Amino acid sequence: MKEKLYIIKIGGNLIDDEALLNEFLEQFSEITEKKILVHGGGKLATTLADKLGVEQKMINGRRITDKETLDIVAMVYAGRINKNIVAKLQQKKCKAIGFSGADANLIKAKKREHAEIDFGFVGDIEKKSVNKKLISKLIKLKLVPVFSAITHDKKGNLFNTNADTIASVIAQALSAKYEVELLYCFDKEGVLEDVENPKSVIKNISEEEFSVLKEAGKLHKGILPKLENALGAVKNKVSKVFLIKETELKNHIQNHHAGTEICL
Amino acid sequence: MKEKLYIIKIGGNLIDDEALLNEFLEQFSEITEKKILVHGGGKLATTLADKLGVEQKMINGRRITDKETLDIVAMVYAGRINKNIVAKLQQKKCKAIGFSGADANLIKAKKREHAEIDFGFVGDIEKKSVNKKLISKLIKLKLVPVFSAITHDKKGNLFNTNADTIASVIAQALSAKYEVELLYCFDKEGVLEDVENPKSVIKNISEEEFSVLKEAGKLHKGILPKLENALGAVKNKVSKVFLIKETELKNHIQNHHAGTEICL
Repeated sequence: MKEKLYIIKIGGNLIDDEALLNEFLEQFSEITEKKILVHGGGKLATTLADKLGVEQKMINGRRITDKETLDIVAMVYAGRINKNIVAKLQQKKCKAIGFSGADANLIKAKKREHAEIDFGFVGDIEKKSVNKKLISKLIKLKLVPVFSAITHDKKGNLFNTNADTIASVIAQALSAKYEVELLYCFDKEGVLEDVENPKSVIKNISEEEFSVLKEAGKLHKGILPKLENALGAVKNKVSKVFLIKETELKNHIQNHHAGTEICL
Repeated sequence: MKEKLYIIKIGGNLIDDEALLNEFLEQFSEITEKKILVHGGGKLATTLADKLGVEQKMINGRRITDKETLDIVAMVYAGRINKNIVAKLQQKKCKAIGFSGADANLIKAKKREHAEIDFGFVGDIEKKSVNKKLISKLIKLKLVPVFSAITHDKKGNLFNTNADTIASVIAQALSAKYEVELLYCFDKEGVLEDVENPKSVIKNISEEEFSVLKEAGKLHKGILPKLENALGAVKNKVSKVFLIKETELKNHIQNHHAGTEICL
């Protein structure tokens, strides 16, 4: 039987709230199984860009990562946020080790190609982008990798990469060796039938149900990429994939509190 | 016989000059022996602090690292500079992996204590602060650690720590296992008898000679902490310690071009 590995993604709302982040990291550090944390960015990068007068460039409503913006996200994600999370986990006796995808070539991305738009320093990744051999070796040393959403192309360039996608492809790559449970933690109880009603959690979403919900316009913009990455994971042999509320991590792991499970 | 390990420190003037940095990283990546890179900060943090209107606080001429300044140096050193160096080394087929001292608890510091001045988030370290066991394991995996000058206290706090000292204590800690050669790279040919004359390199400086030079006022402010850290290294069983010109790294390693050797 394969050994269990949790891959847990946290997002901006947690990172922007020190007390909430601390509570989450407490719960994360108590997980006794092998584990990996992937974190997004939060508002810090935007705040810093504003203060520095670096404009957020958009083309046809799509965000562009120019060199100045890349410098900011590399600093904020791989520097300030990543190292603060690692320091806090170390305080809680969790053997955290922080990474960008450039470190040890752990995640090699390709610059996003698009017929009309140059997205700038945005990297796309897939299962084979992940250096699963080395990540496994680090996990065997009882280390807990903490990934920021920065990758590289092995040509000397850093890239901004979607953190939901990073969590999904790491889960896919490591499923060859581990029984991976991928958890997307966010501020809702799960995917809600009615956004206003926290009790309207949809227990399971299959690929087919996802298409129906999507076409019915029932999925708001923020949840869509999470669900697409979650589906990509289950289609690529990740054992279990859930969307759960970030404060329910411990409850989920101990009591199988569900949130929304994504399945084939 | 112990295996050879180079520990190489680079400073701000290199980091601020992209072409020079690239040339250095090329030479560094060609070293076939085991190696570790330690880098300082350069002007980027000060420039960013200026742009953000964060004042550099000084007490009795000593620099203070308040919380805002710490956030900036953590971003710049452990984020932007560290990840760019790692990405560039990866491009040159060097298996670089970037670290702060918080990562895997590699360097645990103590907040600087001083009778009169609170230096803020400044961490002091010594030989035993270094997690030499884990660094050795990472080196055995053929990885090349790249350290930024950020440490932590295992109580959740990050610290600003002198990069010359980091290089020295890592060298001291790893000398139990490796034959360590510690190289401080800077913009001079070595320690100069006459700062205006690049040919006046002092070939050897012993502890006694250091005291004489220091008392004669022959050592300028910038070189003093480097020499103190270099002496700390030779006194703690580091095999060889040199101050060399950064463009002479390859020459030093291949042809034993000397610079200034520090000895007991």
